[in-house]
Amino acid sequence: MHAHPIQIYYEDTDLSGVVYHANYLKFFERAREHVIGADRLVALLAQNIGFVVHKVSLTFKEGARLGDVIEIRSSWRLESKYRVVFHQAAWKGATLLAEGEVEMVTVDGENRLVPLPEW
Amino acid sequence: MHAHPIQIYYEDTDLSGVVYHANYLKFFERAREHVIGADRLVALLAQNIGFVVHKVSLTFKEGARLGDVIEIRSSWRLESKYRVVFHQAAWKGATLLAEGEVEMVTVDGENRLVPLPEW
Amino acid sequence: MHAHPIQIYYEDTDLSGVVYHANYLKFFERAREHVIGADRLVALLAQNIGFVVHKVSLTFKEGARLGDVIEIRSSWRLESKYRVVFHQAAWKGATLLAEGEVEMVTVDGENRLVPLPEW
Amino acid sequence: MHAHPIQIYYEDTDLSGVVYHANYLKFFERAREHVIGADRLVALLAQNIGFVVHKVSLTFKEGARLGDVIEIRSSWRLESKYRVVFHQAAWKGATLLAEGEVEMVTVDGENRLVPLPEW
Repeated sequence: MHAHPIQIYYEDTDLSGVVYHANYLKFFERAREHVIGADRLVALLAQNIGFVVHKVSLTFKEGARLGDVIEIRSSWRLESKYRVVFHQAAWKGATLLAEGEVEMVTVDGENRLVPLPEW
Repeated sequence: MHAHPIQIYYEDTDLSGVVYHANYLKFFERAREHVIGADRLVALLAQNIGFVVHKVSLTFKEGARLGDVIEIRSSWRLESKYRVVFHQAAWKGATLLAEGEVEMVTVDGENRLVPLPEW
Repeated sequence: MHAHPIQIYYEDTDLSGVVYHANYLKFFERAREHVIGADRLVALLAQNIGFVVHKVSLTFKEGARLGDVIEIRSSWRLESKYRVVFHQAAWKGATLLAEGEVEMVTVDGENRLVPLPEW
Repeated sequence: MHAHPIQIYYEDTDLSGVVYHANYLKFFERAREHVIGADRLVALLAQNIGFVVHKVSLTFKEGARLGDVIEIRSSWRLESKYRVVFHQAAWKGATLLAEGEVEMVTVDGENRLVPLPEW
């Protein structure tokens, strides 16, 4: 399990006073980039290989607010040599804010599926 | 069925050259705001009632690129007096780019569920 | 003078209830992409030539709110064969919301200045 | 002088491969929120007082890329009891990426200027 802290800024909120729903997908991706490693992502891109989000499911429970420091907890499982599924959740202390699954694949420059890099 | 056109700008893309995955959630929300009506959303907010996304599921198929004009097609069903589910899809001509479901509820100022406004 | 309408959605606002300040830069760029033409931008990119923002100055006067349809008014002048300056303003009816100048240049794939394409 | 590190993620880039220009305004605001203090911002909001960006000027020099960890360096001066000007710059190692000034004021719930909180 990987934990990544994120502070909530003005840019993350909308007029309702809490974090705009789509931004949790951004937070989850930031966490995944730490799991996979930015250096590895950059090295793959140099070979024209990129991680792509194929499916997402998300449930929203509570809203995070300006100044909150939330934690993104990520775990993952390899479903096949072509796909990895992350379970990701946003927590504020003991309160679950949002959770879901993100299925990812890797593709080449022509958007064809390639096996995941060594995990 | 409601159709809403969206032009893809620089801001929508990421370094992979196509639209950043989380932005489809923004595009879907823009379309829903046209379905529900901005005037109605504003009138509800004046009563401290707001629409909130409760669940999202999304599958990504193809990427949209700078200058593309895509179409968001939305249909919806009332699941109960408390929740409405939108089926939404992004199309570029005859190519399906992404599709999914978004379940929405309405809440009051204390984040308590309230019945949906007359639909 | 070029006029481009933009509707304000949830995603554009922050907890203050009005449009997040940085989003005016996005709105101004959307308008410039219409002035220059998305087809032309894409054709230039195929030659590894891209427009780049070099300088920005902006003054913010009033905030736009959910459901507002604002208008981005753009005019421009060629300062040299290498740079074009846009004057851009966001209006809501007769109310000026924000205005400023955006200086743009074109660069090649090595980030070297190239003459602007025929204007 | 205040220094705030920011890692560049997919969400920050556009199709040109570098950070989308408007995002530097977001990065600068994140840094200012650390300078002012999120707790203080939240306490002010509870009194209906908010910081508002009045003017911005920015020059862009070099682009930041995926995986870069850049540093936002901020200094500030009180111009009057109503306005504070931040000088902010984004650095990647010894390379200046972007720099500019952001003039801020504080307003009440009716968008009227109020003296800055004790600094």
